[in-house]
Amino acid sequence: MRKIGISELEDIAMGAALLGAGGGGDPYVGKLMAINAIKECGEVTLMDPEEVPDDALIVPMAMMGAPTVLAEKAVGGKEYKTLNDMVSRFFNKEIFGFIPIEAGGVNSMLPFAACARLGMPLIDADGMGRAFPELQMVTFTIGGMSASPMALTDEKGNCVIFETVTNKWTEDLARAVTMACGGAVSVSLYPMTGAQLKKYAVKNIVTRSQKLGEAIRTVKNSGDMTPEEHFLKFSEGYKLFKGKITDVLRETRGAFNFGKVMLEGINEYKGQSAYVEFQNENLSATVNGKLMATTPDLICLVDKETFSPVTTDGLKYGKRVLVVGLKCFELWRTPVGLDLVGPGYFGIDTEYIPIEERCKGGDA
Amino acid sequence: MRKIGISELEDIAMGAALLGAGGGGDPYVGKLMAINAIKECGEVTLMDPEEVPDDALIVPMAMMGAPTVLAEKAVGGKEYKTLNDMVSRFFNKEIFGFIPIEAGGVNSMLPFAACARLGMPLIDADGMGRAFPELQMVTFTIGGMSASPMALTDEKGNCVIFETVTNKWTEDLARAVTMACGGAVSVSLYPMTGAQLKKYAVKNIVTRSQKLGEAIRTVKNSGDMTPEEHFLKFSEGYKLFKGKITDVLRETRGAFNFGKVMLEGINEYKGQSAYVEFQNENLSATVNGKLMATTPDLICLVDKETFSPVTTDGLKYGKRVLVVGLKCFELWRTPVGLDLVGPGYFGIDTEYIPIEERCKGGDA
Repeated sequence: MRKIGISELEDIAMGAALLGAGGGGDPYVGKLMAINAIKECGEVTLMDPEEVPDDALIVPMAMMGAPTVLAEKAVGGKEYKTLNDMVSRFFNKEIFGFIPIEAGGVNSMLPFAACARLGMPLIDADGMGRAFPELQMVTFTIGGMSASPMALTDEKGNCVIFETVTNKWTEDLARAVTMACGGAVSVSLYPMTGAQLKKYAVKNIVTRSQKLGEAIRTVKNSGDMTPEEHFLKFSEGYKLFKGKITDVLRETRGAFNFGKVMLEGINEYKGQSAYVEFQNENLSATVNGKLMATTPDLICLVDKETFSPVTTDGLKYGKRVLVVGLKCFELWRTPVGLDLVGPGYFGIDTEYIPIEERCKGGDA
Repeated sequence: MRKIGISELEDIAMGAALLGAGGGGDPYVGKLMAINAIKECGEVTLMDPEEVPDDALIVPMAMMGAPTVLAEKAVGGKEYKTLNDMVSRFFNKEIFGFIPIEAGGVNSMLPFAACARLGMPLIDADGMGRAFPELQMVTFTIGGMSASPMALTDEKGNCVIFETVTNKWTEDLARAVTMACGGAVSVSLYPMTGAQLKKYAVKNIVTRSQKLGEAIRTVKNSGDMTPEEHFLKFSEGYKLFKGKITDVLRETRGAFNFGKVMLEGINEYKGQSAYVEFQNENLSATVNGKLMATTPDLICLVDKETFSPVTTDGLKYGKRVLVVGLKCFELWRTPVGLDLVGPGYFGIDTEYIPIEERCKGGDA
């Protein structure tokens, strides 16, 4: 158990944006909300999952909808208490703590704002260890857990509770209400016990985000290593490519951002080419025509000089980036995990091969 | 307090379809569901509103969406218990009885099915005394009551509870979920106390429906009167026109059925013409270019020979109909009532003039 203040938050936001694998929205907006809440209400207690009682009620909270809409509508601050009251009332039991549902710019930060405002601990765990585009894509689904009862509220004070027959129905009905509410709402879903948390959550993801963020911030203080060597070492990343963005293709279909970013090699990759395909998050990286990494492993684009993460929203012509691959959480590599988030689900015509296999003999 | 069996139900369905003023869907489908429930579970107790304790929890229940979809999907029978459990759990209090939200073919019958299956009394009252197309168009809105908490369930078992900041938001969010669920769902809304029921509901509407239905069934046994005289007498109807349907214009916009039915006079109306405009329900009747009746008064088309009601769904070329106007419930004639359901709300360019004024010197 330790306290998280504003300086820790800066590092966590940076690291979580890296783990967002291109998705999860602008870290700036989420961070502002969390910083404001901590300034007004004080630091947040971060609790290790092992410290949580087995029968405690733990609830992931997040925003649902388009992060770009969130940047305009914002979250009022009342929403956290509303969600808390809706869920506690439903279960007739107090919520012990919140967890983030995913890593990423926005959803890693909102639970800090919630916990600060409600004086509640944040548990150091999430349901993805990265970001994914759909509601059922959480390790809790692997554990057979239900997304519902799911609570939803908007900045106007409208409140909806869903109990659905499948997690896909939760997605469909909550998506319909999210659109009717203007495109961005606050939700809590996959309510669970402390025992379930310990079994299925991605543990210590906040601490990992913080360490990653701290390392990015101090990447130049690397002694004998070059900053890039340093970055690859602490991130345990596989270097996939380095290049200049020459084109970004984007298409919005069914509330998702699909696209492809084209890269022209620079430095040691001069004369080579690569592309990364995405659906909100990066899905696959292809270098010189060869597939080098696929979901569920993380494919991250970072600024070549500062190593700060570049989200799919922020892809721009001419930007120079390093493409790195990170191993995903182990449960995603099980057959059930791969059914949920493997290359096949996203229409990529390949078997899943772990990144460390694909990159054998590479730079890592 | 009295028992309602299958023969009473037949009359109630017929009378309620007349009070549906063209809307409310096919009485046949609703009646089948109620008859099946009574056959399986026994007769329903119909209770006078004055017999209801002031602190009792009373809940209107209905189907939301397109009655034409309901005819295909049906209501499974589990939905009533689900709604009951959702609402009781929300208030932590047992529901004392259901009421219908409106008159009309489907929504006057489903509460009978619910009460039969749950062994619960049906209270002899509703929220319109007719049918209207939108969720906020109930006398309870005049009483400042909230549509939410509103419970919604579908035949698959998905459950949603809404608590919204206005009744218009209830309409918007519930409509979005209804569409996502396939176009027809079961709902309960405007939960109220017995005291509120007594103050704002349209009382004894079931009994009135039954008397109307019985009179239509026996319209030929009218002694000295012609069947038509008999029908106009017991319905307290104003005769507006008699004619043959020469055209029906229909347009579906925003989940509503808009349209206009053109009539060519027959018998004593030979050589004259009329038309009736509708939005699910009939909104206005114009005879020889003169407006003869508008919402909120009831405009009903009935078969010229049998006097059985013709819904807007059932309008067909060549059908011979009598057009009658009935006085609406008194609360609809107040300024607040007219704001909700008067001609202005529906875009009809006229002040509301009660039907008995418009028809002065007419046939009634």
